[in-house]
Amino acid sequence: MTAHSSPARPVLLGQNQYGKAENRVVRITRDGTTHHIKDLNVSVALSGDMDDVHYSGSNANVLPTDTTKNTVFAFAKEHGIESAEQFGIHLARHFVTSQEPIHRARIRIEEYAWERVEGTGADGEEIKHSFVRQGQETRLTQITFDGERWEVVSGLKDLVVLNSTNSEFWGYVKDKYTTLKETHDRILATEVSARWRFGWTDGEQPAPDWNESYEQTKRHMLRAFAETYSLSLQQTLYEMGARIIENRDEIDEVRFSLPNKHHFLVDLEPFGLKNDTADGAVYLAADRPYGLIEATVLRDGSEARIPADLTNL
Amino acid sequence: MTAHSSPARPVLLGQNQYGKAENRVVRITRDGTTHHIKDLNVSVALSGDMDDVHYSGSNANVLPTDTTKNTVFAFAKEHGIESAEQFGIHLARHFVTSQEPIHRARIRIEEYAWERVEGTGADGEEIKHSFVRQGQETRLTQITFDGERWEVVSGLKDLVVLNSTNSEFWGYVKDKYTTLKETHDRILATEVSARWRFGWTDGEQPAPDWNESYEQTKRHMLRAFAETYSLSLQQTLYEMGARIIENRDEIDEVRFSLPNKHHFLVDLEPFGLKNDTADGAVYLAADRPYGLIEATVLRDGSEARIPADLTNL
Amino acid sequence: MTAHSSPARPVLLGQNQYGKAENRVVRITRDGTTHHIKDLNVSVALSGDMDDVHYSGSNANVLPTDTTKNTVFAFAKEHGIESAEQFGIHLARHFVTSQEPIHRARIRIEEYAWERVEGTGADGEEIKHSFVRQGQETRLTQITFDGERWEVVSGLKDLVVLNSTNSEFWGYVKDKYTTLKETHDRILATEVSARWRFGWTDGEQPAPDWNESYEQTKRHMLRAFAETYSLSLQQTLYEMGARIIENRDEIDEVRFSLPNKHHFLVDLEPFGLKNDTADGAVYLAADRPYGLIEATVLRDGSEARIPADLTNL
Amino acid sequence: MTAHSSPARPVLLGQNQYGKAENRVVRITRDGTTHHIKDLNVSVALSGDMDDVHYSGSNANVLPTDTTKNTVFAFAKEHGIESAEQFGIHLARHFVTSQEPIHRARIRIEEYAWERVEGTGADGEEIKHSFVRQGQETRLTQITFDGERWEVVSGLKDLVVLNSTNSEFWGYVKDKYTTLKETHDRILATEVSARWRFGWTDGEQPAPDWNESYEQTKRHMLRAFAETYSLSLQQTLYEMGARIIENRDEIDEVRFSLPNKHHFLVDLEPFGLKNDTADGAVYLAADRPYGLIEATVLRDGSEARIPADLTNL
Repeated sequence: MTAHSSPARPVLLGQNQYGKAENRVVRITRDGTTHHIKDLNVSVALSGDMDDVHYSGSNANVLPTDTTKNTVFAFAKEHGIESAEQFGIHLARHFVTSQEPIHRARIRIEEYAWERVEGTGADGEEIKHSFVRQGQETRLTQITFDGERWEVVSGLKDLVVLNSTNSEFWGYVKDKYTTLKETHDRILATEVSARWRFGWTDGEQPAPDWNESYEQTKRHMLRAFAETYSLSLQQTLYEMGARIIENRDEIDEVRFSLPNKHHFLVDLEPFGLKNDTADGAVYLAADRPYGLIEATVLRDGSEARIPADLTNL
Repeated sequence: MTAHSSPARPVLLGQNQYGKAENRVVRITRDGTTHHIKDLNVSVALSGDMDDVHYSGSNANVLPTDTTKNTVFAFAKEHGIESAEQFGIHLARHFVTSQEPIHRARIRIEEYAWERVEGTGADGEEIKHSFVRQGQETRLTQITFDGERWEVVSGLKDLVVLNSTNSEFWGYVKDKYTTLKETHDRILATEVSARWRFGWTDGEQPAPDWNESYEQTKRHMLRAFAETYSLSLQQTLYEMGARIIENRDEIDEVRFSLPNKHHFLVDLEPFGLKNDTADGAVYLAADRPYGLIEATVLRDGSEARIPADLTNL
Repeated sequence: MTAHSSPARPVLLGQNQYGKAENRVVRITRDGTTHHIKDLNVSVALSGDMDDVHYSGSNANVLPTDTTKNTVFAFAKEHGIESAEQFGIHLARHFVTSQEPIHRARIRIEEYAWERVEGTGADGEEIKHSFVRQGQETRLTQITFDGERWEVVSGLKDLVVLNSTNSEFWGYVKDKYTTLKETHDRILATEVSARWRFGWTDGEQPAPDWNESYEQTKRHMLRAFAETYSLSLQQTLYEMGARIIENRDEIDEVRFSLPNKHHFLVDLEPFGLKNDTADGAVYLAADRPYGLIEATVLRDGSEARIPADLTNL
Repeated sequence: MTAHSSPARPVLLGQNQYGKAENRVVRITRDGTTHHIKDLNVSVALSGDMDDVHYSGSNANVLPTDTTKNTVFAFAKEHGIESAEQFGIHLARHFVTSQEPIHRARIRIEEYAWERVEGTGADGEEIKHSFVRQGQETRLTQITFDGERWEVVSGLKDLVVLNSTNSEFWGYVKDKYTTLKETHDRILATEVSARWRFGWTDGEQPAPDWNESYEQTKRHMLRAFAETYSLSLQQTLYEMGARIIENRDEIDEVRFSLPNKHHFLVDLEPFGLKNDTADGAVYLAADRPYGLIEATVLRDGSEARIPADLTNL
């Protein structure tokens, strides 16, 4: 990234991007009376030859953010939404190839999943146009295109998982501020925020099956969480990432941000009650503070490209 | 409710209640290596002979809110959590019968549902201690006890549903501020907030099967949403309530607060595109403002007791 | 409130209301280069002869929620926004008097306060069109009109206050679940949610000065919080309400919902540090659970009309 | 950053960090009956020789996150909180210098500002221990230390500003998806999220006066917002950054993330009303989508080091 000098002052413009954020687009497709739904939140960020608009306010190179919004909705009709990734690729290519001053486009998409509601219509036929939001995780993707190279980083957030045993924590450093007791049987719980980067970068090459990749990646990650006998949340994190790398050839890098959602064993002795984990115990689910464990897991030979910060805390 | 006069001033104390809100209690039970989880957010509100603490600050009649918190956690161990309703009944009875100055207890509970994560342990056995939060609706209950009569109001919130057809809106009043176009095929979507009151009030009588009642009530409500050909959200609301009343004898009253989550058909004509519902269309999912439809549906002969306001807007 | 029987089923319709919620209206007025801003969030709820729309979906009596939205924006231009209360009165009167099937209107308004940003224009004149949101409390009002009688309930939320001394808590009931230690010097902090009801109900009588009333009521409430040597949050609550009743003749009733925002004295002894309140201490500001203290304070001779629940927990 | 190979698998560990997030520490200091308050939310992230904990779960190099929490509270007592920046510096230095495996510490702090509530005590003296939260912006800082070099990035978020005139938008690119009308008088509003990096990196050199720097930086930024006649939000952003660089020698780089909080002029013509900006107009304050303008402004000769993404959308 090069910084550009202002005509009149010793103050430079650095990296900059603009676009319309959080376009909430819903696309229904009808196959007779069977309907399908895609529900996305699409954010556009464009960069390029944008010095003048910052220095003088000249909009001569600026495609309005309102136009980027219109494009999102028009493309949902023109191209459909096969997957969030494919939809983002259409958009990114369009902005970079159709507007000379725009050199780079980044499309971020959140996707909300729906499942069918069962019902029978007045005609006795099964209803196929009624949906309830699943509400579990939010699927994510980010498509970046600079006119030559593609970068696709997908992921998810808000996936809350918990193991009620097979987690220990002991053998750690003790300094003068350490009061924590070691434990050999605790709850391990987290709210998974993950991003994974695809090896696919060349638009001439066949792209992965984005939807299949998402389902399998989520499945491997969940199984790794369940199957790992954990001595630390870091170990579980690494295992979740390693399983993805080992099982999904199309993915080269995974970044996790895992809050340790503490469940404290409640002291019930003052009330004459034993509260042992072995028996099934009662826990206080705490809010703040929380441990926060973040790391990148990489395929050997790959470069780390996902930024370290998925959160702002 | 009687208001009490202050010793020194012409200012009266009216209805009052206090307690510890949002106790986040998680209870694990173990059946060998098969674990079960209950995840609640419990809020306690107590009323009674509490004039002095307001007028003079004397705490002689005040069981500390901290004690009510301890009681929640101790009861989760002592009594277990068979259902949110049953757990609330234990708590309410305890506060009213064990503390002379406390005449009324109200327990509100939110419950978060979990499902199992599949996995295989190192021993080759299926893992039964790993969970992922479902994340769909939040189950609710409110137990009120005044020493004689019970009132149980259960419900849910955050359940987002959508019909992609079979919804019309026309034939309404037009005044000088009306610009809305009539429609014969629109998306109907809402985020259901519902409360239902049980007929059960006498602790000597057998109580409903709370968990079965919840599952069936949710099922009937969803089916009614899917199966109703809707001319207005009010009609759909009434149908959802009527189905519950007709199918669940244990329930006498239902209150709904249904935001009309508007999905606006996007005008794509400027871009040379048709965007007809019959073809499968593209919609903008709007945030604010939104229609808000609220109503009570009652069993004939029952009294309306659920307050009108489930929201503060 | 009467419940109406459905033509075909033993299921009654109870209280119901509908309208457009959360209309975010901003009104600028210009006095030369000096601008003024009013920033409101307006929610409309209408009730009346609405059986048919629930039973059959007939919208013949239904003024669309979209029309109520249009009316909010048109009235902001036609009538201006002198105060949230006055604006709500215009709206409520309009809906009830202009639409025969509408018998009752309730207008809820949130108001966000702004202050000026200092600056000098290119002409050397002080800038009077630049604002920064204050961000402290949110001002509230609710106007209800049934064609004859007015009810105005104003208030605020999100006002966070803290006394770092002059708060004690001791002399309370101890039962088998009590572990709390008594304290003679603690932090008392809360996030005030308050509603106050005006005596004004007759539209023929002169109305209070709504803006002056709001400023003075907030001032008295804050001073009462600061000046009360507190033995319990209930005592402080009562004092806050009593001061309003004593000083503001136009107000007959106040309802508070006061979470006790616990600040726990941290135990630093394991680190060889004393952490005494008398010295200035370090506290952990806790999130959940929290004490929740709610009460009504009334003018002698007045009736309590504000609902008990300002929150849903 | 080097990635390390796992002993057994072709899967590497990349950048990683851990610590306790969101420690809510409140520090009261007493100067006789005059009290002062500091209210922080402190998040610790540590990096270093942490391969083993990821690969095998060995915690031999892991200082528990619980210990980092204890350290935050203990340091608030031992060192006091002169400024968020100074407090973060104490913490970062401690972790890096006291624990051999820890090579880098990053401390992020949010600070909430309070102002005094006026009141008179029973003794007739002015009360100096009662506070109300200001609630405007949240002050931010991030301290990073690797044992040699310091990096301090401060900033703020949630500061909502609005100009009711002196904003135009025209002369932009029109493509086939452009429908936006040009305007020569619009509202310009944004919610400022800003980070600024200090030139101070050498702990041996005297540090800036952090509190004075914050107040002045905020003041210059606000004045620039008010005083700029704006042809685009990009121009206003650049001006806000340039003013900081020009006026605050201690700051070398500023990054902004500015949502364009759209205020749409409402079309009131259907109701026979003119709604001209020149008269004072009525606007709809929209939620989503919104323009999002992000850029870095740099001192000539400085390197851009603040990451591009301050948000996740």
